[in-house]
Amino acid sequence: MISMDKKIKILGIVGSLRKDSFNKALMNYAMSIHLKDAEIELADISEIPIFNQDLESSVPESVKTFKSKIKNSNAILISTPEYNYSIPGGLKNAIDWASRPYGDNSFDGKIVGMMSGSGGYMGGARAQYHLRQVFVFLNMHPINKPEVMVPMVHQKINENGILTDETTKKKIEELLQALINHAKKLTD
Amino acid sequence: MISMDKKIKILGIVGSLRKDSFNKALMNYAMSIHLKDAEIELADISEIPIFNQDLESSVPESVKTFKSKIKNSNAILISTPEYNYSIPGGLKNAIDWASRPYGDNSFDGKIVGMMSGSGGYMGGARAQYHLRQVFVFLNMHPINKPEVMVPMVHQKINENGILTDETTKKKIEELLQALINHAKKLTD
Amino acid sequence: MISMDKKIKILGIVGSLRKDSFNKALMNYAMSIHLKDAEIELADISEIPIFNQDLESSVPESVKTFKSKIKNSNAILISTPEYNYSIPGGLKNAIDWASRPYGDNSFDGKIVGMMSGSGGYMGGARAQYHLRQVFVFLNMHPINKPEVMVPMVHQKINENGILTDETTKKKIEELLQALINHAKKLTD
Amino acid sequence: MISMDKKIKILGIVGSLRKDSFNKALMNYAMSIHLKDAEIELADISEIPIFNQDLESSVPESVKTFKSKIKNSNAILISTPEYNYSIPGGLKNAIDWASRPYGDNSFDGKIVGMMSGSGGYMGGARAQYHLRQVFVFLNMHPINKPEVMVPMVHQKINENGILTDETTKKKIEELLQALINHAKKLTD
Repeated sequence: MISMDKKIKILGIVGSLRKDSFNKALMNYAMSIHLKDAEIELADISEIPIFNQDLESSVPESVKTFKSKIKNSNAILISTPEYNYSIPGGLKNAIDWASRPYGDNSFDGKIVGMMSGSGGYMGGARAQYHLRQVFVFLNMHPINKPEVMVPMVHQKINENGILTDETTKKKIEELLQALINHAKKLTD
Repeated sequence: MISMDKKIKILGIVGSLRKDSFNKALMNYAMSIHLKDAEIELADISEIPIFNQDLESSVPESVKTFKSKIKNSNAILISTPEYNYSIPGGLKNAIDWASRPYGDNSFDGKIVGMMSGSGGYMGGARAQYHLRQVFVFLNMHPINKPEVMVPMVHQKINENGILTDETTKKKIEELLQALINHAKKLTD
Repeated sequence: MISMDKKIKILGIVGSLRKDSFNKALMNYAMSIHLKDAEIELADISEIPIFNQDLESSVPESVKTFKSKIKNSNAILISTPEYNYSIPGGLKNAIDWASRPYGDNSFDGKIVGMMSGSGGYMGGARAQYHLRQVFVFLNMHPINKPEVMVPMVHQKINENGILTDETTKKKIEELLQALINHAKKLTD
Repeated sequence: MISMDKKIKILGIVGSLRKDSFNKALMNYAMSIHLKDAEIELADISEIPIFNQDLESSVPESVKTFKSKIKNSNAILISTPEYNYSIPGGLKNAIDWASRPYGDNSFDGKIVGMMSGSGGYMGGARAQYHLRQVFVFLNMHPINKPEVMVPMVHQKINENGILTDETTKKKIEELLQALINHAKKLTD
């Protein structure tokens, strides 16, 4: 059980590398919320090369750092676009590295929450359901509700990359609270 | 309609970058089959960097070549492992690049067949079902049967990387035949 | 190949049994469209009991009729709500019966199109992606585009159960045209 | 928090109505295990009619009983075949009823474990992954590991319907233990 005076450590992972990414903006909002009992740190997956099992004998530094940050966290918060009705290859590739080598899955037992936004109606839903199947193998515990899937995300973020939509803000706050509560129950 | 004297062009894509990949061995077997009315060329996705929309203004050469090979083919043959109950990040990343920029999806209308092998019982099935959802967005036409999912693939490939299992060989031959037949019906 | 003077026979299946079903209204609109080269007949799945393999020796009349109508059609058009993020049990049960007994799958080789509507943003998308996986086993050929997923469907159907939304009407027309075209290419 | 002297109540649901169902045999084995701190009761879904929202004003007795048993349990154990690469219609239909009427989802917050067997290699995996998506909407907490998917299930059950395979027995025991542990952590 997490002692009451220790903060829940949340690692944020953004699935898009684009500088002005809308999903980065969702993460930025999450990181701007004042949390009494948790803190969010951001992971950097931009330097992680394509996974190749032949490279496992000399794991890249970017992967070592990523794995270490995951292990030091109690919960994971992913904000990602949907590419081609599934998980962006770059995000999936970072997850693949962090699950390796065999027997050293950094995500094992972590609680996980998801946010996604898209220009259409689905708000990235299809990427999230594929991620949920990945979490089964990784033995992660995803939050069920709220599902933060933001349709028309480009209309909800201003020219300075700031999330302005109150409904979305409230959902992100609820997701964070659910993530923290679940982490307190399940982490030991 | 493809004229009867023209060969169906199949582009092979391997989802693993490992040198001695079992799924590469499945592809090698497919490429060794004598086909009267089709030919298989292999794509190289090992040099494709992680997708970043900010890079779309100067598309990498490796992506240009990949897109061009896809466009010149009538059908696609994918042989891939399953990573973490889904598509390998590297393969998904190559697909993401080839679907871009917006309005220039190289896979549009292509027929596609899949093979996958794994060390367990599922034979990579979960990666294939996720790929099928991706194909909906890409407007590809996947073959339904046979589904080539090879359980215990390591027991079916010898120390020289040669597929030796007769049941698997026959399934790959059936898949290729189905791919060629479907391409003849649908391509125009 | 279907001769040019024969009409494509489409069997319509509605996934909701509710009398004033919104998805029934979508189907009604499809059936009201004047088609030069196709005709839509409606199936009745309301009397089909829950599948039990012990009953296969004496197949219910409602199932015999359903199977016979499927076999006599070239293409299937499904209009269904989403229940609990998946296929309604009643619709899935009708499909299960029609796929049986072993070796007598009535859906084998049929072209299939889907429509779905929901009160939320997703428009029944999750039911459609689960149906697509079912179609792989049934060896059916689903249409990729357009995907007719109608969000806020209750706002698009009037008090007489008539679809009034022009965007949705147009999408249904496009789906029907794609279904007919694909049936002409693939049926023989 | 469940007090230590109270037993965890598990409700067993079998997805096949067949008298000699293999998946019933898996459930029978689970029910035969001596559990110090839990007890399994079996639900009967054979009398539940096809869901029709028009019938919600007078809910059938079979549904009332089913909903009441779910509510009185701490955890759910499902043993089901896979039909047509998805959830059996009859099982999905029972779940649909139990999630209704709107605002009275009997499954809300329950822990859930799954078993499935099939005559092929997949062991019912595809039904389980579709069920996992259903659990998101129902706000259930599925066990990640072990995944009890029994390939060639007909070879593992004797002519008296008794599970004889030791590997499968051990997996079922592990699943039950994981279900009980998770229920203790999450139920309050």
